[in-house]
Amino acid sequence: MSTSINRQWLLAARPAGLVKASDFRFVETPVPEPGEGEILVRSDHVSIDPAMRGWMENRADYVAPLAIGAVMRSFNTGTVVASRHPGFAPGDAVGGAFGVQDYCLAGTAAVPARKLRRPHRKSLYLSLYGVTGMTAYFGLLEIGALQEGETVLVSGAAGAVGSIAGQIAKVKGCRVVGIAGGAEKCRALTERFGFDAAIDYKAGNLAARLKETCPQGIDVYFDNVGGEILDLALARLANRARVVLCGGISRYNLAELPPGPKNYFNLVFRRARMEGFIVLDYADRFDAAEDVLAEWADSGKLRQEEHVVEGLELFPQALIGLFQGENIGKQVLRVDVP
Amino acid sequence: MSTSINRQWLLAARPAGLVKASDFRFVETPVPEPGEGEILVRSDHVSIDPAMRGWMENRADYVAPLAIGAVMRSFNTGTVVASRHPGFAPGDAVGGAFGVQDYCLAGTAAVPARKLRRPHRKSLYLSLYGVTGMTAYFGLLEIGALQEGETVLVSGAAGAVGSIAGQIAKVKGCRVVGIAGGAEKCRALTERFGFDAAIDYKAGNLAARLKETCPQGIDVYFDNVGGEILDLALARLANRARVVLCGGISRYNLAELPPGPKNYFNLVFRRARMEGFIVLDYADRFDAAEDVLAEWADSGKLRQEEHVVEGLELFPQALIGLFQGENIGKQVLRVDVP
Repeated sequence: MSTSINRQWLLAARPAGLVKASDFRFVETPVPEPGEGEILVRSDHVSIDPAMRGWMENRADYVAPLAIGAVMRSFNTGTVVASRHPGFAPGDAVGGAFGVQDYCLAGTAAVPARKLRRPHRKSLYLSLYGVTGMTAYFGLLEIGALQEGETVLVSGAAGAVGSIAGQIAKVKGCRVVGIAGGAEKCRALTERFGFDAAIDYKAGNLAARLKETCPQGIDVYFDNVGGEILDLALARLANRARVVLCGGISRYNLAELPPGPKNYFNLVFRRARMEGFIVLDYADRFDAAEDVLAEWADSGKLRQEEHVVEGLELFPQALIGLFQGENIGKQVLRVDVP
Repeated sequence: MSTSINRQWLLAARPAGLVKASDFRFVETPVPEPGEGEILVRSDHVSIDPAMRGWMENRADYVAPLAIGAVMRSFNTGTVVASRHPGFAPGDAVGGAFGVQDYCLAGTAAVPARKLRRPHRKSLYLSLYGVTGMTAYFGLLEIGALQEGETVLVSGAAGAVGSIAGQIAKVKGCRVVGIAGGAEKCRALTERFGFDAAIDYKAGNLAARLKETCPQGIDVYFDNVGGEILDLALARLANRARVVLCGGISRYNLAELPPGPKNYFNLVFRRARMEGFIVLDYADRFDAAEDVLAEWADSGKLRQEEHVVEGLELFPQALIGLFQGENIGKQVLRVDVP
């Protein structure tokens, strides 16, 4: 790869149904020069997230719209290669929304860069110390208001957020049940992530398996998927349960809105609540959360797994693979492949 | 009416679809004698509530099941006519779940009786000072966490709970929009109950009318109806909105569960929550709430309207009428018609 070329993936079309490779366009442009107050960042990793589907559509209206022809939005880690900003020097490890491309101008209000506090664990800033880990942490502890001894159900449990959420609940002394697709993922839940029980939703009998694994009902349901699984979980809530709405991967690729959860009224019978959140609202507490998560990771209480796709040119496949459920742990695209 | 006869309405069948007169059976039995520690209460009013549909079905599993052949459950006010209980004397005004009948043995753990603290305003204990008023009060202030200046939307707004909820929100300095069926009810909302705006859902264009009347979005939605109205309200939530799930009258008479709210995922985009509650959980704070509501009512800030059906024999019609939306304010059955 020449260092004078910036490879970029642009948004070519709003997705209809499943995300397709043709929703993106690959271009090569010159590497830009930083102006006064800017830095030039070379990306090394791109975070592959379900939220990308919403950004492509402009459905997630809490972030700025993404225009057709713009560089596809992403969270990245990278290295400062040139700086005209007093706060950064070449070689600094940084994180930010640098887009699906090799190089990005950053360090400004429009494209902030954050110096990584643990540069020796750089890749973790897209997973455990990044938006993914923060989503699990604040979703479970703030919105879920988790208490020791409770029964916690996590869907999408073998995925990036789910695998961390389940492990945080274990650290907090909860009984943790995970739902994932397929025997391999379910084995990972109990054998590698320490869940108490795993349910393979592809094996059927979901309602019966929920009853079996959550005999006292569900105190906290951490929902990454929506759809039928949300509906069945609502039917098994314990009194004063909290449903944490984190994601709805089952709906992201549908052209029309799917049916809502018909058991929502069980929230009344169970005096329960269902609540959504935007993790960026907690940004001023990310450093403190990172310190807690780092302590757990360093002491072996919490493990981060990654599914790495190598090569910027494979971005569409990496995203499509996420929606097909190919990953255990965090789906990451490695950009700086030699 | 002979004082030696107790007229009773028994549950004859679990309802399928709309409640029908044949779901009940009318019988006459002897008036019972109070045993040691019991009182005999003569009912004067029966509260006609949407929750009755759930009791008939045993769907509301937070109360004991109601057997076929049992006296239909209800909240009542009445007068003690005989007492073998040290805490009650003949003539005492009392409230309790005395059932759809003339006479009831009470004062026990199974059928508690509560002495009315304002016996001169007896009828209000089925509405403003009863479960109805408490539902509006705790639902809006505790679950809704209402703040001055917010926009509050109330559905079923001309009904018993809705008309009180909207008025409480006005007392608290909110902008209040009510949804009701028909021009007469909508006029009542703005002219008699002081709502800022009313939407007639039978007139169509509900989404457009919501946009027009809640231009900044909805901060608190007090939901008495569920169904399509809940779905449209979810689509118009403001950031950090609270949806108070109070009732779902649109679903009570359906044989199967209707579709859930397909816009539930807007709870994520709006960092919002949807929460149910059981008003009886707040029973130890009812007296304090009654004092506050009484002060507002006495100072003219809050008015209670009643739709009274006269005669115990009309109970099935009074309940069917509630589901047909015949009432403005509280639907009450008067039992002690001379």
